Amino acid sequence: MTRGFYIGRFQPYHNGHQAVLERVAKAVDEIVIGVGSAQLSHELGNPFTAGERVLMITRSLASLGRPIYVSPIEDIQRNALWVSHVRSMTPPFDCVFSSNPLVMRLFAEAGHTVHCPDMYERQTHSGTGIRKRMLAGQSWEHLVPPAVVGVIREIDGVGRLRQIAESD
Amino acid sequence: MTRGFYIGRFQPYHNGHQAVLERVAKAVDEIVIGVGSAQLSHELGNPFTAGERVLMITRSLASLGRPIYVSPIEDIQRNALWVSHVRSMTPPFDCVFSSNPLVMRLFAEAGHTVHCPDMYERQTHSGTGIRKRMLAGQSWEHLVPPAVVGVIREIDGVGRLRQIAESD
Amino acid sequence: MTRGFYIGRFQPYHNGHQAVLERVAKAVDEIVIGVGSAQLSHELGNPFTAGERVLMITRSLASLGRPIYVSPIEDIQRNALWVSHVRSMTPPFDCVFSSNPLVMRLFAEAGHTVHCPDMYERQTHSGTGIRKRMLAGQSWEHLVPPAVVGVIREIDGVGRLRQIAESD
Amino acid sequence: MTRGFYIGRFQPYHNGHQAVLERVAKAVDEIVIGVGSAQLSHELGNPFTAGERVLMITRSLASLGRPIYVSPIEDIQRNALWVSHVRSMTPPFDCVFSSNPLVMRLFAEAGHTVHCPDMYERQTHSGTGIRKRMLAGQSWEHLVPPAVVGVIREIDGVGRLRQIAESD
Amino acid sequence: MTRGFYIGRFQPYHNGHQAVLERVAKAVDEIVIGVGSAQLSHELGNPFTAGERVLMITRSLASLGRPIYVSPIEDIQRNALWVSHVRSMTPPFDCVFSSNPLVMRLFAEAGHTVHCPDMYERQTHSGTGIRKRMLAGQSWEHLVPPAVVGVIREIDGVGRLRQIAESD
Amino acid sequence: MTRGFYIGRFQPYHNGHQAVLERVAKAVDEIVIGVGSAQLSHELGNPFTAGERVLMITRSLASLGRPIYVSPIEDIQRNALWVSHVRSMTPPFDCVFSSNPLVMRLFAEAGHTVHCPDMYERQTHSGTGIRKRMLAGQSWEHLVPPAVVGVIREIDGVGRLRQIAESD
Repeated sequence: MTRGFYIGRFQPYHNGHQAVLERVAKAVDEIVIGVGSAQLSHELGNPFTAGERVLMITRSLASLGRPIYVSPIEDIQRNALWVSHVRSMTPPFDCVFSSNPLVMRLFAEAGHTVHCPDMYERQTHSGTGIRKRMLAGQSWEHLVPPAVVGVIREIDGVGRLRQIAESD
Repeated sequence: MTRGFYIGRFQPYHNGHQAVLERVAKAVDEIVIGVGSAQLSHELGNPFTAGERVLMITRSLASLGRPIYVSPIEDIQRNALWVSHVRSMTPPFDCVFSSNPLVMRLFAEAGHTVHCPDMYERQTHSGTGIRKRMLAGQSWEHLVPPAVVGVIREIDGVGRLRQIAESD
Repeated sequence: MTRGFYIGRFQPYHNGHQAVLERVAKAVDEIVIGVGSAQLSHELGNPFTAGERVLMITRSLASLGRPIYVSPIEDIQRNALWVSHVRSMTPPFDCVFSSNPLVMRLFAEAGHTVHCPDMYERQTHSGTGIRKRMLAGQSWEHLVPPAVVGVIREIDGVGRLRQIAESD
Repeated sequence: MTRGFYIGRFQPYHNGHQAVLERVAKAVDEIVIGVGSAQLSHELGNPFTAGERVLMITRSLASLGRPIYVSPIEDIQRNALWVSHVRSMTPPFDCVFSSNPLVMRLFAEAGHTVHCPDMYERQTHSGTGIRKRMLAGQSWEHLVPPAVVGVIREIDGVGRLRQIAESD
Repeated sequence: MTRGFYIGRFQPYHNGHQAVLERVAKAVDEIVIGVGSAQLSHELGNPFTAGERVLMITRSLASLGRPIYVSPIEDIQRNALWVSHVRSMTPPFDCVFSSNPLVMRLFAEAGHTVHCPDMYERQTHSGTGIRKRMLAGQSWEHLVPPAVVGVIREIDGVGRLRQIAESD
Repeated sequence: MTRGFYIGRFQPYHNGHQAVLERVAKAVDEIVIGVGSAQLSHELGNPFTAGERVLMITRSLASLGRPIYVSPIEDIQRNALWVSHVRSMTPPFDCVFSSNPLVMRLFAEAGHTVHCPDMYERQTHSGTGIRKRMLAGQSWEHLVPPAVVGVIREIDGVGRLRQIAESD
């Protein structure tokens, strides 16, 4: 049995993340997902709470047919401790999937095996891009799994983002 | 659709917790579980990491047939902020199940509906009792779900507890 | 113009504190009051929030005819930094009134003048004693200024203390 | 009896704040003022300590004829907990006065009534503008209440700001 | 070249520590010493600051003829992160010398080699015992290296301890 | 006997630092060195851990013939407490050597004597410049003491810096 780890901020969880995780699901038996910067919310770059992001992810992956574990991970502001922090908050895992150079370096220095999945298309699938579309009143719903549309509507996520944006 | 919240330290997750959650599962559609004192581990009263506890709980509840969300909750040492902290780390929930007077008070002051499930038998099912049995070399496996036995063996949980106990 | 500093936890503010501060008011022009352990509330030994304690103190001293400044002071858990912490959160003061040996030592090591007011009668006027009377259903109202009775009733302070006491 | 809440960083407290609070004083019986980013001082954008700011505010509002409560509020870096944090450090209040979109959103999501006072003239009355004038050696005294001039002189506030500015 | 690690609270540094480190010095080329609970001082059980303890240790080991590195280590309250924390604050080391079961367990789980030096005589050489003698006015100077006597006199360490002891 | 204090981030320790400290060594009997932002590492601007920096400094100054004390100093994010923080983590010192205006101001406000050593040549000797050269594949070894070259090679410091730089 192998367990793989993947981390992101998921502001919001989108089709790019979904595509990567569907590919990861073919390589491992179980998936551990870290929701990074868990303590942040109600910010232009981090509008959603950790719990809201957990909900988006869990619902979107319900049909995956793999056990998944989704843990909020608060920032610790100390890179040298970050891998230990992540590991204490998540079930034990055998390998890491990441294309972020810092994440890759920190796990490698700690002796972990790191796989770099092919990059999903950054242009069309990025949290930054989706948040910009929300602010501009453009359609964004086709860029995220249907379950994410439901969660964001339920919490008035677009309204929240727009009001926050009025603060300089 | 209703979502119910339940919190514990789960050191370890045992049959008492399982019994309560099976009853909660009949009252709500989805269950949100907070793993309290998530930052603690390798202590006499808190031997297991948050991630190890997440694993025990998720596996034990796999057959429940209900979506569950298991979030580590770090202590915040400020009771007046605790409900907001819990809510930021978990999917939105409609009601709380707890028999802990402080938890009940804090959620009630914050305007939440709190249900008090009948107490499970404290004598035979308590984390403290199970840890004592582990230290004394007595059987404890019948007091926890089978999945928990597997996790504790995998991480050498009893060996860890015994070595820590030698400090003072 | 001289400004004097006095600190306590004020759980709750009582006649003993009031007597000391009335005497301090004769020695200085303005009084700075620190509300210690400001981050604690909803505990057996610390039932009231910092804000509730600020309200008790300000109302009780309204008739003093002296400018007063009441600042919540969160614990910093580092004695060597505590005086700097207090000074950063309060208007500048010229002298300290305290009968607590640690407070006296820390301010003296930092070069401050410390006065030790005669001890008020500890037996009849102590926060611990008042909280015990509240729990036991005995009268406590005569041990605190009238304004404090009003605040505690308004926030259901006794009910809160009793419910918390049921935990363990 | 109604109590209103207003928060700012007050670096320094100026005539714009004073004008808003004089108008708020007509709408409520008592005013609760939060001194935000209380932990910051000796920075280009935050030169004054929380205690120095408490002194500026209390003195400037002495003639208001309304009970006021001035509490330092340390940043908590977690928007989802901020309202609970503010409420724990301040006497209970009935409504909030703010023209800051984030503050308005956070209090509204927490179920509070929020009033938006007419904006004071930003150009002539802003902390940033006053600090720039101090650095440039221009007059700034006419932009703040007389009591604030006294406090800043007493603590050599302009000298502090200029020396700090020499650090890149 | 090998570097060995040793950690203690050193409240104060005494002949027992000195004896262990003299033995360690024969086994390694360089010694790294962690000063634990570095943030604590001015407490009955932790009277001395980290800096004062650094001074005691460095002076007492000056004649050792080995490079030593003495780093204050603040408590992190999270056992699962503690080894990473220690390692980030100290030069890289090859092995650990400790007779504390928790320290041994944490380093072993992290993959470090741990040596257990023979226990020094706890009765005559313990920080607790020395602090008790200081409080009781008994001689303690023969239980610590001469350099430590000098440091404690210079900072009025005994006077500090006695005054603190008057608090409860 | 006089002890002097000097603080820097030392990312990495270079010939400019060495030149200043050799001059300081002529003015005092012992040198206390604070390693600032000790908690940071694995960042573009802060690639090295506190412990790695302690090693660079101690080795480079071994031939100085003066007792030196090198203490990691974590950021405290509160300027008003920073001097107390530094002093709690270091042996007592008599004077401060710094050319940083904020450091000079904070120590002066706390009553310390501050000396401003002549500035070393910033252009050729700055941490920023050295890190840029490392990234660009240019020679940097002549800008730091030989011991520092050894430490950076041992920990693959340049490789670490380059990999981190790939994160946006």
